[in-house]
Amino acid sequence: MTVADLRVTAVAGGVAAPAGFRAAGVASGIKKSGLDVSLVAADTRASAAAVFTTNKAQAAPVLIAREYIAASGGHARAVVINSGCANACTGAEGIDTARAMASAAGAALGCEPTDVLVASTGVIGVALDRDRVTSGIAQASRALGSDGGAAAARAIMTTDPFPKEAAVEVATPAGTFRVGGMAKGSGMIEPMLATMLAVVTTDAGVAPALLQRALTAAVDTTFNSISVDGECSTNDCVFALASGGSGVTIRESDVIVLTEALRQVCEPLALGIVRGGEGATKLVTIDVSGGRTHDEAKRAARAIANSPLVKTAIHGADPNWGRLVAVAGRAGVDFVLDTARVQIGNVELFAHGQPFDERAPEASEHLQGREVVVRVDLGTGGSGRARMWTCDLSAEYVRINAEYRT
Amino acid sequence: MTVADLRVTAVAGGVAAPAGFRAAGVASGIKKSGLDVSLVAADTRASAAAVFTTNKAQAAPVLIAREYIAASGGHARAVVINSGCANACTGAEGIDTARAMASAAGAALGCEPTDVLVASTGVIGVALDRDRVTSGIAQASRALGSDGGAAAARAIMTTDPFPKEAAVEVATPAGTFRVGGMAKGSGMIEPMLATMLAVVTTDAGVAPALLQRALTAAVDTTFNSISVDGECSTNDCVFALASGGSGVTIRESDVIVLTEALRQVCEPLALGIVRGGEGATKLVTIDVSGGRTHDEAKRAARAIANSPLVKTAIHGADPNWGRLVAVAGRAGVDFVLDTARVQIGNVELFAHGQPFDERAPEASEHLQGREVVVRVDLGTGGSGRARMWTCDLSAEYVRINAEYRT
Repeated sequence: MTVADLRVTAVAGGVAAPAGFRAAGVASGIKKSGLDVSLVAADTRASAAAVFTTNKAQAAPVLIAREYIAASGGHARAVVINSGCANACTGAEGIDTARAMASAAGAALGCEPTDVLVASTGVIGVALDRDRVTSGIAQASRALGSDGGAAAARAIMTTDPFPKEAAVEVATPAGTFRVGGMAKGSGMIEPMLATMLAVVTTDAGVAPALLQRALTAAVDTTFNSISVDGECSTNDCVFALASGGSGVTIRESDVIVLTEALRQVCEPLALGIVRGGEGATKLVTIDVSGGRTHDEAKRAARAIANSPLVKTAIHGADPNWGRLVAVAGRAGVDFVLDTARVQIGNVELFAHGQPFDERAPEASEHLQGREVVVRVDLGTGGSGRARMWTCDLSAEYVRINAEYRT
Repeated sequence: MTVADLRVTAVAGGVAAPAGFRAAGVASGIKKSGLDVSLVAADTRASAAAVFTTNKAQAAPVLIAREYIAASGGHARAVVINSGCANACTGAEGIDTARAMASAAGAALGCEPTDVLVASTGVIGVALDRDRVTSGIAQASRALGSDGGAAAARAIMTTDPFPKEAAVEVATPAGTFRVGGMAKGSGMIEPMLATMLAVVTTDAGVAPALLQRALTAAVDTTFNSISVDGECSTNDCVFALASGGSGVTIRESDVIVLTEALRQVCEPLALGIVRGGEGATKLVTIDVSGGRTHDEAKRAARAIANSPLVKTAIHGADPNWGRLVAVAGRAGVDFVLDTARVQIGNVELFAHGQPFDERAPEASEHLQGREVVVRVDLGTGGSGRARMWTCDLSAEYVRINAEYRT
């Protein structure tokens, strides 16, 4: 099978869309109001894979999820996530609470605690109420249903303005399988998945190692290519579970097909995180070309995506290509001013070392929209290309983050 | 001489305080209103040194100042700076305009163009009006005076809310000399001097190479230890001129004395830039200890200084030490959560892997002030320490930068 053989159709149901999965979201009282415990369960033991935060301050649930996915040899029955409290920087008590979450889910589902992946999101350094979260998990296990994807997606939200879920049906010559997913943002996204949680499910049959390869590759061009504010949290995780319920088996030679299928779900979830970024009013696509290497192009794209001056200019619909040049120039990669180019929308504003400011009004018009594209060629003549997505920086971002705990 | 031998007293006069210097600031019409051409002149040819932006997109005046200071063997009669237009990304025309600035000053002062250092600050990618700037320079040369420091400091401002100048008299066993200086910010400060211009003058006598060593060292702990928003511009420069007018000569063995004297002027200028950072309401000192090395401590301090989440929390007087831990953890340096410590003011909020949230009200009280101190120990047991200064991130920063050109 090749990627060209796939026919991909959007379907409803989120994480519970693939065969063999149920989900639920309940209110346990960790948050003052609203859903705060999310459970995604496979009917039978599934292959599991995960990508974790690179932050050196790792939250208790990250440490436990790492430990358990290794102990189970890349298998899991369920993912349980609470919002409202990150259970990070909470010492030995926090570790015990993360274990208690897995044990509660295991008891409810009839599996080993090590077959449960745990995650938490919310304020750092506040103890997670063990009674509330474990009774919430028991409650969620009773509420599991194939229509529970939407509630599960709501229950992982913190400052997210809307839930993020997606699911697709993938028709291949070998049969049809599904991929579903949910994610939460918002601020603190980047450099490597920050306070970003996502769960992806599929009813394809696939060995754990192969699922891990496909997940890592799909995450690289989606969740690891977005940035809201350049932060990276203590709690970020992307989990994938594969039930095999579709009867379609992914072999070593088909890994690119599974990667593409996962990407089809991860990309809209990742873009949803950016669209719902704290205070965001615009989705900004940054295409960098002409890098000496892909890595250099990505580094420049990331520097642009994280630049407060670029993000405020875009917020103000100011076609300030000079800031793009300045950021590309300080990104620590090869950059040649005389051959560099900058486009906003389809309007070239800088090339051959010269600005074309007479075109600024047309570029400004493009920047008024909700979807903005910025293209920078680093001018090295190399073939390195990369894409990042980010959002604009608004006064609302400041308001949200200055008042998060108060 | 050692640093302990120095007695340092603040004096008036800014860049024109040391013997043998005059200054002026005039309005040439580059800006719609206000002073926009600044001239600092030595009565005779002076030793000169400079530190330039590390941005790969270098503005025309940076290229010309680099060329001329090399051509003159580290000598100069004057520094000429315009505000209102950065003369960056302006192609061959821009280069010619930068040369014309030096030629105009040379003609007015009776020296070679290569004995003039040029700089520009303002919007990138807009042509600098050559007639206006050169006639402004001629006008400034006629206005030169020993009382011109204040006007010169005003004429280099862009979004700066106030001018920044400082001068000291340094009494040593070998005699008394003076150091004066002026600087402009504001946003785009960092990683290596961004849209930051400073001119430092001294009437000590010192060879160019020695002046360069002292300047580089003084800049490292002052202008290179501040950050407003993590940006680095196409135009940053720090220039130093030494006239010898005091009769005190700095020898190789006294370089530490000169470094300290320059630092005494550069530090208040650098802190003034932070205090006047775009939208800033607080000066934040970040002390990092317990790093494996000085460089690692500085990298962590810089990551904290540039974190939008830390800066918005401080703006909101939220003692959110969790964000400090999360940023230290993602700074790409050694970090040990179990032995790390976080203090806000003198209040320890996190240690031994545990939060002390009962102390949050006291820390919040400290954060209400205009001067805030944050201390993070990276927990490695190493002796690496570093200090950075930054400001908070306010909705006003967004407003200024979303509307800069409109």
